[in-house]
Amino acid sequence: MQTKTFNSGDKIEIQTKYRKWVGHALESYDSDIILLKLPSGYNIGVRESEVLNARVIEKSIAPISSSANIARDNPSLPNVAIIITGGTISSRLDPKSGGVISTDKEAILTIAPELKKICNPVIESPFMKFSEDMSPRDWKLLAETCEKYLNDDSISGIILTHGTDTLHYTGAALHYFIRDLNKPIALTYSQRSIDRASTDAALNLICAAKFAISDIAEIALVGHENSEDISCLAIPASNSKKMHSSMRGAFKAINTTPIARITKEKIEILKSFNARSDIQPKIDTKFSNKVAIIKIYPGQDPSLLDYYKENGYKGIILETTGLGHVPGKNSGRNWIPKIKKAIDSGMIICATAQTIYGRLNPNVYSSGRELQKTGIVFLKETSETALVKLGWVLGHKQWNKKKKMLESL
Amino acid sequence: MQTKTFNSGDKIEIQTKYRKWVGHALESYDSDIILLKLPSGYNIGVRESEVLNARVIEKSIAPISSSANIARDNPSLPNVAIIITGGTISSRLDPKSGGVISTDKEAILTIAPELKKICNPVIESPFMKFSEDMSPRDWKLLAETCEKYLNDDSISGIILTHGTDTLHYTGAALHYFIRDLNKPIALTYSQRSIDRASTDAALNLICAAKFAISDIAEIALVGHENSEDISCLAIPASNSKKMHSSMRGAFKAINTTPIARITKEKIEILKSFNARSDIQPKIDTKFSNKVAIIKIYPGQDPSLLDYYKENGYKGIILETTGLGHVPGKNSGRNWIPKIKKAIDSGMIICATAQTIYGRLNPNVYSSGRELQKTGIVFLKETSETALVKLGWVLGHKQWNKKKKMLESL
Repeated sequence: MQTKTFNSGDKIEIQTKYRKWVGHALESYDSDIILLKLPSGYNIGVRESEVLNARVIEKSIAPISSSANIARDNPSLPNVAIIITGGTISSRLDPKSGGVISTDKEAILTIAPELKKICNPVIESPFMKFSEDMSPRDWKLLAETCEKYLNDDSISGIILTHGTDTLHYTGAALHYFIRDLNKPIALTYSQRSIDRASTDAALNLICAAKFAISDIAEIALVGHENSEDISCLAIPASNSKKMHSSMRGAFKAINTTPIARITKEKIEILKSFNARSDIQPKIDTKFSNKVAIIKIYPGQDPSLLDYYKENGYKGIILETTGLGHVPGKNSGRNWIPKIKKAIDSGMIICATAQTIYGRLNPNVYSSGRELQKTGIVFLKETSETALVKLGWVLGHKQWNKKKKMLESL
Repeated sequence: MQTKTFNSGDKIEIQTKYRKWVGHALESYDSDIILLKLPSGYNIGVRESEVLNARVIEKSIAPISSSANIARDNPSLPNVAIIITGGTISSRLDPKSGGVISTDKEAILTIAPELKKICNPVIESPFMKFSEDMSPRDWKLLAETCEKYLNDDSISGIILTHGTDTLHYTGAALHYFIRDLNKPIALTYSQRSIDRASTDAALNLICAAKFAISDIAEIALVGHENSEDISCLAIPASNSKKMHSSMRGAFKAINTTPIARITKEKIEILKSFNARSDIQPKIDTKFSNKVAIIKIYPGQDPSLLDYYKENGYKGIILETTGLGHVPGKNSGRNWIPKIKKAIDSGMIICATAQTIYGRLNPNVYSSGRELQKTGIVFLKETSETALVKLGWVLGHKQWNKKKKMLESL
């Protein structure tokens, strides 16, 4: 066969006597072996002498490194701050390891050159990490980085790029940390790394830029509406949730509707929003780490609450079943007295919905009413947003009526 | 106004000078007060003298108690065992408390008289409880109750009625506890109590009966496909999940497709299934309670694993982010060494997807590969099914290759 018809990074199909393989070609240290990254994520080696035929299905986008081809600033366009924090949207396939590695921060401009027709990007990267490694300390730093640009009149809006694993937690944190928002903040991401032709990064970035220069002074996750590479949704950053591990369109607005649908052509408003203004934003990043999520399941031992109490925790999110229930006196593992004891000792315990969708309602069943009597707070937020809300409220030692704040915020 | 145009239990609309109220009329101890249960679940009292107008929107179904009106057995119809365990499908609005209370077990036949045209019901109730109170001990008892009917040649199939809160956990338990299933088992439920005209119980029961006399020897959740009162889906009992706290059609098949669509008229097969047979089923209810679910979130302290180790736990389901990630060395709270230590000490730790939908894939990112090196087991099941699977595998002390079994089952 004719070798070297493909480069590492290309998606190729190779045919051996026994079967056909499709995958991304990797750099191989042994020139007799073709190394392929399969769609499953596994790597295989195929002896070149056994290959009957090979063809390129999708060319790799040229290695991204130089920003020489990026257009110069256009004074007639608004300035947009792009805060880059890492994640898949800042990653590309590593032809050596077959894994995904971080790329340089300017790469984002190369993958979405249209950005420069919408705005003048002002790029900053406070850190680069995958979002499973984000912590409340990072949330604070990101809120402070946003604050700088919110107070800079030369900046029209903010794009923050982020990994997908915990983007919805960060979104909730910015929602609570930034008060009196005066301009748009678009959090965006990608599910496929930016060196693949199938990447969702380009459209997400373009739509995020359109959001950032719009009149919508909201913090929104901006990303693919579905698997089509046509439209993005801007969904409220709080109560968003990653609902699929790999598909585009993975982020959903839970128990609420998106703010807008964004295409390359237009922004379609889907509900009322706070408009851009001259309000002076305030940043309030007080946060208590002494909060936890407990997911409720049958047969679970309520002694877990004692563990958290003994370790100085101040608040717990109980991800309850149904309309807001926990195992009661007929279960053999009654959670109600333990919850009451924890609340009486000063902890704040909140209930969220394990069903993800739908509200809690403690008034329908006797088990809900029994739980309500303990002083638990039934929240309408997702567990993830509720955790952030609880940590934020508990971070404010000076606030007297924390339970009331949790219910009314 | 003309009072007594409605009875307690009726859904009524009353008009006062100031506003209109819609709700279910409750029994009132004060004859001057009309007591209403509002759709929110709250009760209000309205002084009868202030009511300008009242009308019935929906009549309550007559109180259910006598089985005198139930048709006699028809020898030409198959016998179906109905195992009644409580939950909303066995509940009705209590005109006294305004809450939902258990009703007698025969009530199910009154709400769905069509059942008697499909089969001869053989009713048994091992216990009556709301499903938030179900425990692994109850799962065992239900598997044993099923066993009796699976081995009874005069019984065509089984319907098991159950609360919705933890039905998907019970479904997974029966999936693992009952081996070599020979006839259909339909788990059914309702989201609205059976004395409301809007109840979903009737259609669910009829479709469950049609499933129970079919050739499909599978354990399935049978219930509303969506909010329309037209069709039910039979979805595999394992990897099902309650995805809405109150809507009909709340149960979804996660990462798999339904087995069949069932209407009053027909069964539409949606994928291949195991057919009814003369195999002798086996019941294997060995189960270890020493298993737990930990939901992973940013900033979480991995010391929690030590708590479970110290308390004799043998297995943990980690509900991980993204494609199967936990906070790593860049997070300030590195879970990887703690997980490795727990596994090295003999615990089995498994990963499931916090995104609900989509598979895990530890090969894409370095963080996934680092986690994989600890010896963690990446599972394809939902967290709820994975918990049951892990407890079931760990219940078998005689099994040597538990990790391999978890991956291959």
